This record gives sequence, structure tokens and C-alpha cells, in this order.
Amino acid sequence: MLQFDLLTTDPASHARRGRLTLRHGQVQTPIFMPVGTHGSVKGVLPRSLHEMGAQIILGNTFHLWLRPGLAVLQGFGGLHGFEKWNKPILTDSGGFQVWSLGALRTITEEGVHFASPVNGDKLFLSPEVSMQIQTTLDSDIVMQLDECTPYETRGQRTTERAACQSMQMSLRWAKRSQDEFQRLNNPNALFGIVQGGMYENLRAESLAALAAMDLPGYAIGGVSVGEPKDEMLRIMAHTPHRLPAHKPRYLMGVGTPEDLVEGVAQGVDMFDCVMPTRNARNGTLFTRFGDLKIRNARHKTDPQPLDGSCTCYTCAGPSGVAWDQGGRDGFSRAYLHHLERCGEMLGPMLSTVHNLHYYLNLMREIRQALDAGEFTQLRARLKADRARGV
Amino acid sequence: MLQFDLLTTDPASHARRGRLTLRHGQVQTPIFMPVGTHGSVKGVLPRSLHEMGAQIILGNTFHLWLRPGLAVLQGFGGLHGFEKWNKPILTDSGGFQVWSLGALRTITEEGVHFASPVNGDKLFLSPEVSMQIQTTLDSDIVMQLDECTPYETRGQRTTERAACQSMQMSLRWAKRSQDEFQRLNNPNALFGIVQGGMYENLRAESLAALAAMDLPGYAIGGVSVGEPKDEMLRIMAHTPHRLPAHKPRYLMGVGTPEDLVEGVAQGVDMFDCVMPTRNARNGTLFTRFGDLKIRNARHKTDPQPLDGSCTCYTCAGPSGVAWDQGGRDGFSRAYLHHLERCGEMLGPMLSTVHNLHYYLNLMREIRQALDAGEFTQLRARLKADRARGV
Ligand SMILES: [Zn+2]
Ligand SMILES: [Zn+2]
Repeated sequence: MLQFDLLTTDPASHARRGRLTLRHGQVQTPIFMPVGTHGSVKGVLPRSLHEMGAQIILGNTFHLWLRPGLAVLQGFGGLHGFEKWNKPILTDSGGFQVWSLGALRTITEEGVHFASPVNGDKLFLSPEVSMQIQTTLDSDIVMQLDECTPYETRGQRTTERAACQSMQMSLRWAKRSQDEFQRLNNPNALFGIVQGGMYENLRAESLAALAAMDLPGYAIGGVSVGEPKDEMLRIMAHTPHRLPAHKPRYLMGVGTPEDLVEGVAQGVDMFDCVMPTRNARNGTLFTRFGDLKIRNARHKTDPQPLDGSCTCYTCAGPSGVAWDQGGRDGFSRAYLHHLERCGEMLGPMLSTVHNLHYYLNLMREIRQALDAGEFTQLRARLKADRARGV
Repeated sequence: MLQFDLLTTDPASHARRGRLTLRHGQVQTPIFMPVGTHGSVKGVLPRSLHEMGAQIILGNTFHLWLRPGLAVLQGFGGLHGFEKWNKPILTDSGGFQVWSLGALRTITEEGVHFASPVNGDKLFLSPEVSMQIQTTLDSDIVMQLDECTPYETRGQRTTERAACQSMQMSLRWAKRSQDEFQRLNNPNALFGIVQGGMYENLRAESLAALAAMDLPGYAIGGVSVGEPKDEMLRIMAHTPHRLPAHKPRYLMGVGTPEDLVEGVAQGVDMFDCVMPTRNARNGTLFTRFGDLKIRNARHKTDPQPLDGSCTCYTCAGPSGVAWDQGGRDGFSRAYLHHLERCGEMLGPMLSTVHNLHYYLNLMREIRQALDAGEFTQLRARLKADRARGV
């Protein structure tokens, strides 16, 4: 099941405020979805995810298929029971990971043959297999199997002809995904994925064909695949707002805080990205006034938290009172710098809490601005703040 | 300051129930103290430590001296402010770490010359320097600098003569530590450390001389330094109960759950050990019915938590209701096995929460049994349970 209620739309942009009802609960949109590749959002306790307002998380079909495998997941009644997450879950199709295997896989019309990177087993992923796996996972949102059209291959940009062929196959796979999804009586919701590379005409063709299939939601795939930023922004400006207005729109794998704000303005409802978790582990922290490298020696004695306006456990401690509001319970930049230098696990743990909280809070601020009819002002303020520098 | 109130003593053993009042709060004894080497208990959020009932944690003088260094710590008013831990802290003297440097250090009567393992700087640690550092750290309990007498050196057991010389120097260092501690007007509490290797007569001599110094508390050092288990148990049976009854007794660096129960029976009030945190990161989990290796394939599909009687977040989830009481919110052995196999950080994080909770809960059960006059029964039950196998 999936119900999407469009609550408000911004008159000055394509931004919308919505509410998604799924089998495991409601999701207020626009939303950022933390990525839980192997059935765990890296470096963070599930309870912390709840506390910072995570409404829906991702799982990776490919990885979960290989480990722990379907027999184990079936024993737990799906991914929710296995990882003990009782709110909605979206799973990808496995297509992107298989595509990333490079020389280790062969893509045909039927599907993808590949060798398991875990144990070398010869495996086969098709639209039907992807639907079968995602049905076992019992994810609230199931993604069609698609072929992720690369931006370039060995330095050569993908031609329009190649992008078209790839997009056409993804459409045929969308139909096969839909057929199998229905045959399995999967009670959740299947999303189609718009492809077409960097070619607007192909994107439009993909979009029209998918819209005709009347799927409950649509994603924009094939972005954040190595293209220059302006190419990504061009596609982001083209595709989302052309998707059916009464259905949720999901921009896959994007991006920076600036990308999210821009994506919302272009009509996107849902985002996912490994950036907040991965950057946290690499010591790059997002703040209201720009990004901060915790390894930098200038933080060595700094008593301030990462972000004086942040109410996360890392910045505001157990009281949750931000530094700017007089709270002094949070962990200092000096302490986080020290943890990073000593290689202490607590460093990435606290950094992950902060970065995810930053992303989720950014979306919360956007939703509040949309509710209040102040999205234009918020968009300008976020941009100016982030450019100020930390 | 330090006040120690002896609440009850067990008529059938040397076990005692006490209450320690320190500058940053009260500690109910017997107690286990989690180890926070670099100003962080590895793999666990401070809030989780509070929730599982940690009353006092350790910090390592040697490591904190090198990183972040005294200037940074001074800027935060000591270790409490730096690591945001508002309950009592005990710091070691740095002696054990310097001793462990092996060829990189030279021990003389004056102190220890060594090269910093962080940056190669030539450094000098003496009783006076240790007191100065620990005064900057402002730890509630300060340990004297001592020489940790090795059990053997290059396969040769330490002779009684060598152990005696070492113990005598530690006594002279105790006096210098006490003098410097007083000169610095340190408002906290200094503990002396009984040495003497595996020789009861030397232990008794060390103990008598330290007792004459009327320090506020005493530790037993030089155990858990590579000696066979029965040697450790022999010293544990000899020394603790001979220490002044109205002062807290701390057995350094020990040990397994069985060691802790035995240590309490021998009159020990305080324990520390890296075992629960280190084993958690290596996938060895403590449970009521013995230890469990989470990597073992037999856990692959097991829906049970690590310990059905455990109420920690890992075993009982956010509700805190144990599996044996019908709770089903905790994480399964199958899930923890999967996290370990995938190298997910959440594995050691959840394992650390459980192992520390196990240790802290064990001490809580011991305190309750002492309060109820049932320590003998609890001791027998714990032993039988642990031997049962998980
Ligand atoms: Zn924060
Ligand atoms: Zn537990």
C-alpha cells in the first residue's frame, strides 16, 4: 500500500509538502532517508535514528541478498524484524551495486550474471529475482530493477544512442518488475525509475512511459554517477517536476545539503545519500555555516560544539539545549578532534549522530517553511548561511 | 576528598558492601569501573554508560598526557569537562603504560625516561610529574606512581630479590607521590599501590608500609601481568583482606566475571578491566551462562538475544524487557552475527553495550545479595550458571 497526500505546494517553485502513508507508518515529505546498506545505518544505534527523527531508512537488496541471505531474512519475517526497525523501509533493486561490479558482471536483456564478491558464487539478478528478494525483505517501498546508465565509460561520455538503448531496457525491466510484483501479491509499493542519462529528450520519454504504467511512485535514477555538478543540476531541473504531481518523487543518491534544498525546489519529495554517514566517518562534518574538517589543528582547543544551533546529542548533549541557547552539555570540537586523532570509535559515532541529525533537521526546517509559506526565504537563508563558512 | 562508609560485611567471606563519596559523586561498592583510556570508553556513548549504571570510569594519565596534552585539558578544567563525564573518574599513574614500552624506556630511582610513542619526544615521568598531571586532570581518585613488577622477563621469573627491590622503590615513590600531592593541594584522593610480585611476604611488607602512610585508599597492583591464573588467585586471596578495613580496596586490571566474584569474596571493593570492551570488539560476549563467540556459524539464524535475562539495549531493546520476561525488542544473535560478518560498526557498538552492562549488572547483583545477606548463595549460583554453557 501507498497513499500520498499532497499537503501544500510552493507558489514560487516546484517545492511540495506531502505525507506518505506506508504499511509501517507515515512519512512527512520532503524527507531524507538514511542509508542502511547491510541492514544497519553505519555507526549509529537505531534508537539514535528514532530520536533524531528518521522516518524511513534504506536497505540494499544486493548486499542483503548476499548476506545474511534470504533464508535468514525469511526467518525474521523480512528486514524489519531482522534489523528491528519498525518504521518504513525502502529497498533499492540491487541494480546499482551489480552495475558497479564492472568486469565481474554481464548484462543481458534477461538480467545480470555476476560472481558474488563475498564468496564467488555465480548469481543471476533479473527484474523477477529482484522483486522476489524485495518481497522477502517486505520493504515498504520496492524499486524496479533498472540499468544505471553510466555518465562515461573509460573516459568516453555515453552517447545518446547508448543511453537510449539502456533506458529502453530499463523500461522493459520496469514492466517485468511490475508483472512479477503483482504476481507475488506484494502488499507494498513499487516505484519506477526514470533513466535516460544526461539527455532531456530521453528522460522525457522514460518518464512518459513509466507514468503510463501508473506506478505508485517514481524515482530519478542515473544521477550522482560521476557527472559534473551542472549536468546533475540540469537533470534535476528537468525531470522531477514533470513527474505525476499526485505521486511521490524520489531523487536517488543525492546529495549535499545544497543539492537537497535545490532538489526540493525542483519538486523532489524523497532523498537518500551515504554522504552524511560516510563523511562522518571521514571526519567531514556538515554545519549550518558550512563544512568542517575535524582533523584540522585549528579545532584542537575549541570548546564550541560542531554547530552552535544544533540540538543533536553530539552538539547539545543529553539536555538537548543548543550552545547558542546557552546549553553547555555537548561535546566540543576539541574533544572530537582528539577522538579523531586517537582513532577512537566514539569519534565516528558522535560525528554520524551529528551529520544525520543535520540532514534530517534540514528537511524538518524545509517542511516547516513549506507549511508556513516561507520556503523562498528559508532557501535564501540556508544558502547564505552555508556560504558564510564555519 | 574521599569518604568510605562500610555498610555491611559478609560473615562467610571477606566480601563487603560500601559507599564511596568523592568530589563528583557517590559510588556504591563493590563496583566495576569501565576503562576510558584516551578519554573515551571505547565504542560506547557516554549516555549509554549512564543508562547501564556506570558510577565511575577510568582515564589513562599516560595517554592523556601525550594526547590531547595538558594545555588542552587545562583549558577544559580537567578531564571531566573535556570528555563531558560528570561522575567520578579514577586515573592511573601512567606507570603501567611506561613500563609496557619495554626497550623504549629507562627506569631509574628518579623516574622513567622514555620516548613518546606518538611523536618521539623525549619525556620524563616521575612521581612528582604523575601527581602534577593527575592534578591537572582533576580525577577524583589519583594513583601513586609505582613500578609494575613483571611476572617474568625474557622467560625468567622475577626473583624475590628483584621483586623486593622493585617493591621498595614503589614505596619510595609512594612517599614522593604523597608529598607532591599534598604540595599541590590536590583536593581529591590519592591511593597507594601494593606491589611485591608473587611473594606474599613482600606483599605484606608493602602493605604495612603503605598502611602506615594513612592514604585514603589502596590498590593491589602487579597482578594480571602474565602470571598463571592460580598465581593471581593466590595473591588475590592473600592481600585484599589484609588492607585497612575502613578504606576502599581496588584490584587493578582484573578480570573475568569469575575473577570479580572471587575478588569480592576476598574483600575487594573496586575493579577495572579492558576485557568487556576489548572482547566486545573481538566478538566475545559475556552471558549469564558462559561466553559466546558471535562469529560462530551456529548463531546465523538464532532469534534469541545474547542473554535472555539481560535488560541492556542490545538484548532487550528500547523497552528494556528481557527476552525471558517476554520482551522481543532486542537484537538477535543472528543480527549481531550478520553485523560481525559484514564488519559493520554497529556490531562492536551493540556488543560493547551488552558486555559493559553485563559487568555492571553483575556487580549490582552482588551488591543486592550483600545487602540481603545472600552473597554465599549468589556466589554459588553465578558459578553454576556460568559453567552451564550458553
Ligand atoms: Zn549536532
Ligand atoms: Zn545484554
